[in-house]
Amino acid sequence: MQTFRVELGARAYPVHVGVHLLDEVGKLALEAGLHGGRVALVTDANVGPLYFERVADALSTAKFDPIRIQIASGEGSKSLAMVEQLYDRMVEGRLDRNSAVFALGGGVVGDLAGFAAATFLRGLALVQIPTTLTGQVDSALGGKTGVNHRQGKNLIGAFHEPRLIVADVETLTTLGEREFREGLAEVIKYGAIMDATMIDDLERDLPAIMAREPRPMEEIVERSLRHKATVVERDEAESGLRKILNFGHTVGHAIEASSGFGHYLHGEAVAIGMMAAARLSQTYAGLRAVDAERLRALLKMAALPVEMPSQWASENFASALNLDKKRSGSNIEFILIDRIGHALTYKLDSEQIIAELSAD
Amino acid sequence: MQTFRVELGARAYPVHVGVHLLDEVGKLALEAGLHGGRVALVTDANVGPLYFERVADALSTAKFDPIRIQIASGEGSKSLAMVEQLYDRMVEGRLDRNSAVFALGGGVVGDLAGFAAATFLRGLALVQIPTTLTGQVDSALGGKTGVNHRQGKNLIGAFHEPRLIVADVETLTTLGEREFREGLAEVIKYGAIMDATMIDDLERDLPAIMAREPRPMEEIVERSLRHKATVVERDEAESGLRKILNFGHTVGHAIEASSGFGHYLHGEAVAIGMMAAARLSQTYAGLRAVDAERLRALLKMAALPVEMPSQWASENFASALNLDKKRSGSNIEFILIDRIGHALTYKLDSEQIIAELSAD
Repeated sequence: MQTFRVELGARAYPVHVGVHLLDEVGKLALEAGLHGGRVALVTDANVGPLYFERVADALSTAKFDPIRIQIASGEGSKSLAMVEQLYDRMVEGRLDRNSAVFALGGGVVGDLAGFAAATFLRGLALVQIPTTLTGQVDSALGGKTGVNHRQGKNLIGAFHEPRLIVADVETLTTLGEREFREGLAEVIKYGAIMDATMIDDLERDLPAIMAREPRPMEEIVERSLRHKATVVERDEAESGLRKILNFGHTVGHAIEASSGFGHYLHGEAVAIGMMAAARLSQTYAGLRAVDAERLRALLKMAALPVEMPSQWASENFASALNLDKKRSGSNIEFILIDRIGHALTYKLDSEQIIAELSAD
Repeated sequence: MQTFRVELGARAYPVHVGVHLLDEVGKLALEAGLHGGRVALVTDANVGPLYFERVADALSTAKFDPIRIQIASGEGSKSLAMVEQLYDRMVEGRLDRNSAVFALGGGVVGDLAGFAAATFLRGLALVQIPTTLTGQVDSALGGKTGVNHRQGKNLIGAFHEPRLIVADVETLTTLGEREFREGLAEVIKYGAIMDATMIDDLERDLPAIMAREPRPMEEIVERSLRHKATVVERDEAESGLRKILNFGHTVGHAIEASSGFGHYLHGEAVAIGMMAAARLSQTYAGLRAVDAERLRALLKMAALPVEMPSQWASENFASALNLDKKRSGSNIEFILIDRIGHALTYKLDSEQIIAELSAD
């Protein structure tokens, strides 16, 4: 097990990455200062049958009394209607201010249960137990919680840091191929924006990671989370530095929104978005063609898509681009890289982005 | 105009109390560091006809571009369904992360628009422009936002401090008698829990305040808000000291919930709750009968109710008491006073409370 702390002053919290950790959740939660007693354990229909009992047992052993809430799997559950159902269950279960919410699952469970925790009784303690690669390397850390509005992803949400993250990499062995690979997009992102050596290492280690060998998985999850922690520690509210984490996400979100949520997995859309950002980086930030090519090769090694979808240049795409939260006035704050391992913010408008991506 | 700052480190913000301030809202917002441009101005059907245009003009003059959102008046609007309508309007109006939400109205507008601001795009800047006495002396300051769940008040909510409070006491002259008087309950509360001199002064000044003379109103609003700021500065998250502000509220909330929301105004229920707390204070904290009597006389001078409603001791009352957010495990953290001007926390269970209030 590897452990480090996310240093956020009075709200600092521990992160544990390793194997067999699901059975330690209760003990780790007590060590992190949580109160025993009534808590909510939220998961989805994919993860529930695999791990619900194990985590519930681990909690009971440590004197927690979990109420179990299982939601439908998939992005469709990230809705205000589903949050309302969680509130109902939390009221029924008589959670009080000392109660905690444990989010056991992927990004959807983490975002949804996190938002419910952020907004029930003006904020309950939250424990993230991510079971997907995307959750473990990205979404569990940093406090972003929320649900979708029909006009756009994550338009409704709040910042609410967890009190503890437990990433058991064994859970990654039960992921489907496509779901596992999408998480690699976020891993590659950290290399692209802040760690050139990580790109070298991934070029060497990706086969072992893709074979789901525990040790390389543990290493890459821990390294990714530490990078994210470094960024979040310096700029929790995303007023500056943290924006670099959006590399690939502005175009990625617009692809997701305009092709109908669910057509691409988030990480797949981000992979395409990173290549779009690399192209814009060549034009506006002097990224060398050979470095864009390295990124492309690595994404392809991870079996991720790298080309814009056919007929992407729709009105829906443009309007999704403009609705993105990273918008400030009429300009879009776009993240570019001038070399591998170094990101910068650049203001572009949607016409510039679309023109560049449309050019031969 | 009297101005002070709520000192919350990086989130410190100014509070202005005075007359003719509605016309200054735009200028004061720029001074407080808000960006011009698209903002939401939220009010209700009572306040809209009186002040919407004036505030919209004041905003436009200062280069804000307000979208106007008018909701139905009353506690019924503090619902998740209404928050959803606000989100829709905010999406339509293309608010972005630099946008602000201006809440013009009483506690319902402040809580509802505040919660929408807290949870849209993970948090927009909020300006509170309270137009009721309760809003001006209490709810606008301290960051509590939220809506009701059918099982209890404010079960859904978030802490979200405003970036600015503008309290124009002239708006208090258009309040109905009953609505004005309910605000006096919160004023008297500050005296009871932390400022014995304020009780002396109220015994002298209440007639002038009730005649709505601008100068005494300005003084009492500013004094009340300063007291609240002092408490919130020391304990924003209500982990300790801030709980004293709940004096009268535990029983008050249970009265509201069990008699059907809307039967009593909040301040009326709090007035009754303060006398219930005074009675418990005599038993458990040694409050002198003569001091309980002084409080009763002052509340009656303010034409507020002081007796428990007939047939209050219902199952609904007990269950509302137990659902209250101030509950911690099976005990209720109850605020008592051992003398006028000094509060303390005492753990009581609902049986003790009901038995004491039932005794002759």
